[in-house]
Amino acid sequence: MPTIAHSVSLIESLKARRTKLAALVDFPVIFWSGQSSARNFPANTYPFRTSSHFLYFAGLPLEKAAIRLDGSKLTLFMDEASPASALWHGASPTRDDVAEMIGANDARPLADLLAQSDHAATIAVQDQVTQFQQSRVLNRAVTPAHDPHGIDRQLAQAIVSLRLTHDELALTELRNAAAVSIAAHKAGMAATRAASTEAEIRAAMEGVILANNMTCAYASIVTIHGEVLHNNHYHHALQPGDLLLADVGAEAVSGWASDITRTWAVSGKFSSTQRAVYDIVLAAHDACIAAVRPGVEYRDIHLLAAKTIAAGLVDLGILRGQVDDLVEQDAHALFFPHGVGHLLGLDVHDMEDLGDLAGYAVGRSRSDRFGLNYLRCDRPLQTGMVVTIEPGFYQVPAILNDRDRRAKYQHAVNWDRLTQFADVRGIRIEDDVLVTETGVEVLTAALPTSAEAIEQFV
Amino acid sequence: MPTIAHSVSLIESLKARRTKLAALVDFPVIFWSGQSSARNFPANTYPFRTSSHFLYFAGLPLEKAAIRLDGSKLTLFMDEASPASALWHGASPTRDDVAEMIGANDARPLADLLAQSDHAATIAVQDQVTQFQQSRVLNRAVTPAHDPHGIDRQLAQAIVSLRLTHDELALTELRNAAAVSIAAHKAGMAATRAASTEAEIRAAMEGVILANNMTCAYASIVTIHGEVLHNNHYHHALQPGDLLLADVGAEAVSGWASDITRTWAVSGKFSSTQRAVYDIVLAAHDACIAAVRPGVEYRDIHLLAAKTIAAGLVDLGILRGQVDDLVEQDAHALFFPHGVGHLLGLDVHDMEDLGDLAGYAVGRSRSDRFGLNYLRCDRPLQTGMVVTIEPGFYQVPAILNDRDRRAKYQHAVNWDRLTQFADVRGIRIEDDVLVTETGVEVLTAALPTSAEAIEQFV
Repeated sequence: MPTIAHSVSLIESLKARRTKLAALVDFPVIFWSGQSSARNFPANTYPFRTSSHFLYFAGLPLEKAAIRLDGSKLTLFMDEASPASALWHGASPTRDDVAEMIGANDARPLADLLAQSDHAATIAVQDQVTQFQQSRVLNRAVTPAHDPHGIDRQLAQAIVSLRLTHDELALTELRNAAAVSIAAHKAGMAATRAASTEAEIRAAMEGVILANNMTCAYASIVTIHGEVLHNNHYHHALQPGDLLLADVGAEAVSGWASDITRTWAVSGKFSSTQRAVYDIVLAAHDACIAAVRPGVEYRDIHLLAAKTIAAGLVDLGILRGQVDDLVEQDAHALFFPHGVGHLLGLDVHDMEDLGDLAGYAVGRSRSDRFGLNYLRCDRPLQTGMVVTIEPGFYQVPAILNDRDRRAKYQHAVNWDRLTQFADVRGIRIEDDVLVTETGVEVLTAALPTSAEAIEQFV
Repeated sequence: MPTIAHSVSLIESLKARRTKLAALVDFPVIFWSGQSSARNFPANTYPFRTSSHFLYFAGLPLEKAAIRLDGSKLTLFMDEASPASALWHGASPTRDDVAEMIGANDARPLADLLAQSDHAATIAVQDQVTQFQQSRVLNRAVTPAHDPHGIDRQLAQAIVSLRLTHDELALTELRNAAAVSIAAHKAGMAATRAASTEAEIRAAMEGVILANNMTCAYASIVTIHGEVLHNNHYHHALQPGDLLLADVGAEAVSGWASDITRTWAVSGKFSSTQRAVYDIVLAAHDACIAAVRPGVEYRDIHLLAAKTIAAGLVDLGILRGQVDDLVEQDAHALFFPHGVGHLLGLDVHDMEDLGDLAGYAVGRSRSDRFGLNYLRCDRPLQTGMVVTIEPGFYQVPAILNDRDRRAKYQHAVNWDRLTQFADVRGIRIEDDVLVTETGVEVLTAALPTSAEAIEQFV
């Protein structure tokens, strides 16, 4: 098992998390780690990711393990490695070793879990095999994590209240992941001039993540077609006039994630049209970060991005009208059709396995509005939260060529003027920010955002 | 969807495969592509791998699709991408586009599959969600792929007879994957002197695979602890006296795999003990490849490796006795505890989802012998088969420190002499070979195997 170095005590931090959870629930809780899923045959598995809730309270990326929390007592359930496993996978820590590493009070074989499962709450993990075990061990239907019922729902709400803000252990790991992601982006910029395909830039970036023995927190986006928001293809050839949008983030061994996007010119130098739009997105990015502080509504940060982008596009002659009216009509969303960001933590969209339970404050739900529907977070910011700030500008054919939208925004958009910006297909600038008592700390600030600085790196 | 360039016609090759299958079965067949599995939340999935059987007959890495084969007729079942998908994932080929690309006779929504499922055979895919759909659509239990029943078993046997030997389309793709793997190994050797951890060498190797827009065919092994046979950790620091064992292979977009292992000295220069054992493994490697030709039993190739290694270890004074006796007693397996290789194709262990149905000829099964139990293939070689040849030498603590084994091999092993080889923890040399009418073609021959040549690359 990889060693995880921490500047803060793992066990003390885990115990503090477990104590907080114990204060919020009056029933036992079982977290399953999950297990690997087969790729093309059983022995060839996808690279396993331990369930985030398990990681939060158990701290180690175990597989086929469970922990039971009852008040302040933690019992670890896992089986010892078989003798054959020692041949194929090397010596493993024993169950007692692991129990000591995570501060467990007791350690037992997995089969003993059945006898200690009465009235316990859980959260469904993502892999189907373990999900089935959860229902079997608890002797009841365990619904998917996005729709927990009964005590499972109470547990989910308690977890959200804990995981929404980050302790020192979490922040240490978030900073570690951010540092590696920053290095990856610099390597991507540096590799661009010699590269002929998107794949080569992706390789340079993910190579840094692998070299630091981390993994990607999500499928990298490294593309000249930034207008495809979740573009996981890398086969396009680079042309000198293209922008390259790279949304790449590392995940620490402990599971904590980072999420950074930068956009640069393949040639190293933005064209005048690219630069004009880049500076609008950057203005939105900077305005949003400047607005982050405890008590501010994240939705208002999103609307600030929308207004800043709309104002910039009015100045450029792409939009026409009053900024407030344009945003009210969702005209900004023609070019900025996603939310300004999301929670970040052990998951890149933190706790999104729980649906909108974490992202949306109690009593709130997604808007039907085109310009707000994709907002992944709608709650007041609190000290200790980490969110992304990621405004963007895109020319998405599926949006801009839509007949109804062209009719609705016939006057709001100067469609002729827009054609002059054909070389600006997609721009996004994304950083990870920590809400502090006095305002904000940008965890990814060591990676520049200004067009001039980025041009220096390419 | 990524473009797949082929020097041979995709459609003609696929049709030839389907015609051959139609001649072997007298019932309709449905292959499901499978679908992606959630990692830590539903929108964050593991990188999807299409089912190999689907790839073999449909040719494209589709997701959430199925094909139905009835005689020479192919019907494609897939749903059109939603409008929201165009926003997030870009324009997709239509169902009719895909149907044309693969030479389908008809194309329908997935929901229509239910009405065309009577009496059809299938092979269970690996992901649980699709497995459940297979049983639901066919209205019967579909057993796991390693244990197919009834017509599914007949289908599996027909597939094995087809996929055991490779057509030109397959060979083109296998060669493409091999070429990228060779470049990856050269990059790993070249990166070693400047590297301080295993992770950095892994990054250099997988970087080449990513830069060529391919993926890893399996979890890379890049380790100074080669004695851990399936070692997927990369955190160890490199020491000048270490050997580095790298088992890394690329997989083409089309799914075809490669599988190469090389072992080199971290310092660039093998020690005299490392070199002595390396040359024994290389002698086994070369002898096995020289023995490959149609009609030869793969088991005999394995035993040839065992004998060559045993003879070399006798010469070194590590083993004592007659070679044939030593192999008969499985003394070689103390140091070479795995099989000499396996089938290679769309899966790195080709068709291992079907258990031993492909690896073992009808009527044969795994031996209980320590020295043969791990042999993944026991059938006569045929023209067009691709197998790996991968002899090795390892000092596995779980084997060599086992009290019963030390007693049994008290005289066969010169345990004192062995201690002089403490810096030889694990060596493996693996190539991919095609059985030809006249003998053998090494698909990975462009990567040198001799100690001198490897020292030049590091």
